[in-house]
Amino acid sequence: MTKPDPEIIKAAVASQRDMVEAFFARLAERSRAEPGITRDTYGEGENWGHRVLLEHGQRTGLHVRTDAAANTYVTLFGRDRTAPRILMGSHLDSVPHGGNFDGAAGVLAGLVAIAVLQDLDVKPACDITAMGIRAEESVWFEVSYIGSRGALGTLPEDALDAKRIDTGRTLSEHIAACGGRPQQLQDRERELDPAAIRAFIEVHIEQAPSLLEAGYPIAICTGIPGNFRYPNVCIVGRHDHVGTPRRFRRDAAMAAVAFANDLDRRWAQLEAAGTPLAITFGRFHTDAGLHGMTTVPGEFHFSLDVRAYDPALLDQIEGQIPAVIQRIEAERKVTFDLGKRAAAPVGVIDPAIAMAMTATAERLGIRSMPLGSPASHDSAAFAAAGVPTCMLFVRNEHGSHNPKEHMEIDDFLDACAVLTQWVVDNAS
Amino acid sequence: MTKPDPEIIKAAVASQRDMVEAFFARLAERSRAEPGITRDTYGEGENWGHRVLLEHGQRTGLHVRTDAAANTYVTLFGRDRTAPRILMGSHLDSVPHGGNFDGAAGVLAGLVAIAVLQDLDVKPACDITAMGIRAEESVWFEVSYIGSRGALGTLPEDALDAKRIDTGRTLSEHIAACGGRPQQLQDRERELDPAAIRAFIEVHIEQAPSLLEAGYPIAICTGIPGNFRYPNVCIVGRHDHVGTPRRFRRDAAMAAVAFANDLDRRWAQLEAAGTPLAITFGRFHTDAGLHGMTTVPGEFHFSLDVRAYDPALLDQIEGQIPAVIQRIEAERKVTFDLGKRAAAPVGVIDPAIAMAMTATAERLGIRSMPLGSPASHDSAAFAAAGVPTCMLFVRNEHGSHNPKEHMEIDDFLDACAVLTQWVVDNAS
Repeated sequence: MTKPDPEIIKAAVASQRDMVEAFFARLAERSRAEPGITRDTYGEGENWGHRVLLEHGQRTGLHVRTDAAANTYVTLFGRDRTAPRILMGSHLDSVPHGGNFDGAAGVLAGLVAIAVLQDLDVKPACDITAMGIRAEESVWFEVSYIGSRGALGTLPEDALDAKRIDTGRTLSEHIAACGGRPQQLQDRERELDPAAIRAFIEVHIEQAPSLLEAGYPIAICTGIPGNFRYPNVCIVGRHDHVGTPRRFRRDAAMAAVAFANDLDRRWAQLEAAGTPLAITFGRFHTDAGLHGMTTVPGEFHFSLDVRAYDPALLDQIEGQIPAVIQRIEAERKVTFDLGKRAAAPVGVIDPAIAMAMTATAERLGIRSMPLGSPASHDSAAFAAAGVPTCMLFVRNEHGSHNPKEHMEIDDFLDACAVLTQWVVDNAS
Repeated sequence: MTKPDPEIIKAAVASQRDMVEAFFARLAERSRAEPGITRDTYGEGENWGHRVLLEHGQRTGLHVRTDAAANTYVTLFGRDRTAPRILMGSHLDSVPHGGNFDGAAGVLAGLVAIAVLQDLDVKPACDITAMGIRAEESVWFEVSYIGSRGALGTLPEDALDAKRIDTGRTLSEHIAACGGRPQQLQDRERELDPAAIRAFIEVHIEQAPSLLEAGYPIAICTGIPGNFRYPNVCIVGRHDHVGTPRRFRRDAAMAAVAFANDLDRRWAQLEAAGTPLAITFGRFHTDAGLHGMTTVPGEFHFSLDVRAYDPALLDQIEGQIPAVIQRIEAERKVTFDLGKRAAAPVGVIDPAIAMAMTATAERLGIRSMPLGSPASHDSAAFAAAGVPTCMLFVRNEHGSHNPKEHMEIDDFLDACAVLTQWVVDNAS
């Protein structure tokens, strides 16, 4: 069998434009939540995404399967069904009032690659699978990579007891309600054997404007940051009258300000030295039931997410936190309760695949650049399980996790072309 | 008529203990809101306080009257009803989940003084009035001294359009619903002519633990702080993914942290120099509907209250704010909207009355100290209108504006004794 010419691949990918636009439109149809899109993890929104994927698979004559975590797999069978398969995909959930592309684009890229193989009548050497992954957006259960780690049998012990932040129901209950089998996850029965996966490739919109700044349509990922997180930190001081003199105050909000300011100063110094790091206080608030203009806040809540590509740097920053807290507790007469800790290891990108992707883009005449992922991705869970992993980023205006995220379909098709060419090169 | 001996006054005040305890208990009866007490301004809680006051007045044969702002006046008629009267009182509303004494103690102190005059059969030279004032807690309408300024005809132009923070209904509607006459307030028809008031005396729990620290039961006020306030500041940045690199971020929460930290640093310097000032960010929060652990906050809200005894210091601090904001807006790529501004002038205490109160306490063998009020009080509205004004503070553990506020009745009766003796001295 002869491999199709790169120009033919590019043209075949370009001809998928209508399918791509229709797929995105169909996804949005029942996940709109003005402003933006809400595909809630193990809820109606995410279920809708999986239904759209499943219907697409059935309509195009592909094999469709779901697993214990309710992930969806759409597969074009290979000549040798026992050969390690190529897995492409990403997640189908979103943050509340997020955008339509974050996650979903990676699933659709896999479908585009498969559609091109079908159109060009390429019968691949191994199974080629587009995977719709569950529960990547940790805002809902505050647990990372639930779907991918569920499939790989690497979910942490107590993950299934985590409660969804809005419904208060457990992950276990939510999975069961979506047709999954939580008991199997509890027993660590894995759907995916890392040894049986040739590669996991995830296309994803960039979650910062680096590509926009550089003027490139796509980037090849160089690494995925690890993180440590304290989702629910609480500072307790004392509610006091607004006129209380400084020496008597136990102001929880100003203690939080001192803490955030200290970390921000350290970050600014590292930034100036060119060391990549990101510190985010996503939730940072006095209590709406207790606060008031004329009350010194006696309670304060925040979430903390710190991420970097260097595990030693993460350890260093986390190691500094107790001393900072101790100083603020003494100065401000408050008490910090850090609450539950969560962490994700740094995700290693397969250098051979990344180099091949770079060469492929060049061969197709598509400008690409190397880029450290700003965000965590399911790819990190695959990499941690020993699967050779790579990511392609697509230029995206207005960031992600917000309703204004914006991706040009041309840029997306560039990523699909690189992905498809790589699949053809590796599975013909 | 011979003046009663100070020992007789002290004994007569002490014999009011049952009445005092019963009155506080009755007030709490229908304003409990676990934890603590809620007497909402121009709502059910405050109405209850006025009903308890009115019933007390009727039961004890006093003259009872309400005004256009629905303040309640309980009066013991004097020998000369045209002579400038002595007014004692405070407010009957509370913050949400506040304590039972903040405000109410000052009304009850007036009732105690009147009861002693009745018990000792002292017919005063002028009318002696205990005033239950409406709407002092500005947390509800974010307007200061509504009841006292309503009575004095000094309410600002647009005050009646202010909306209660929880109900969304206007002050005008709320006043009408409580039997007041908002149109009269709009027309600035005053109930109280400052020239017809000999003095306004307000007993109030201390809202900080200075008396506790010093070991004194009461203090004589030396001044009431003025303030400027921005009840609803909003910072707009951009919601972004948690992984967004620092240079792209427009983090509204970190901008708020930088702002609060800057003001706190200035305050710490003034504090070290012994200059009294208080800066409070009572509400300080990301938006509960938009925030999440994995989203860089694109919006932040806070209230700011700055208070001091020195008008020039207030001007100086407020004058520094625009430059601080400009720097942060440039550094953090955010926009501050300060929103509505409110301010209250510094309240001047009548030095002759304060000196007389100090001498009276000494004569009664009650230890007192001079103390600048940490908080704003209705007294400031009376002082601003030209009424000779003084305040007595009562020792109070655990601060105020919280459910744990705690006052010993012994300490309260000490304040009542000084007040009553002063009334006897000035109206016999």
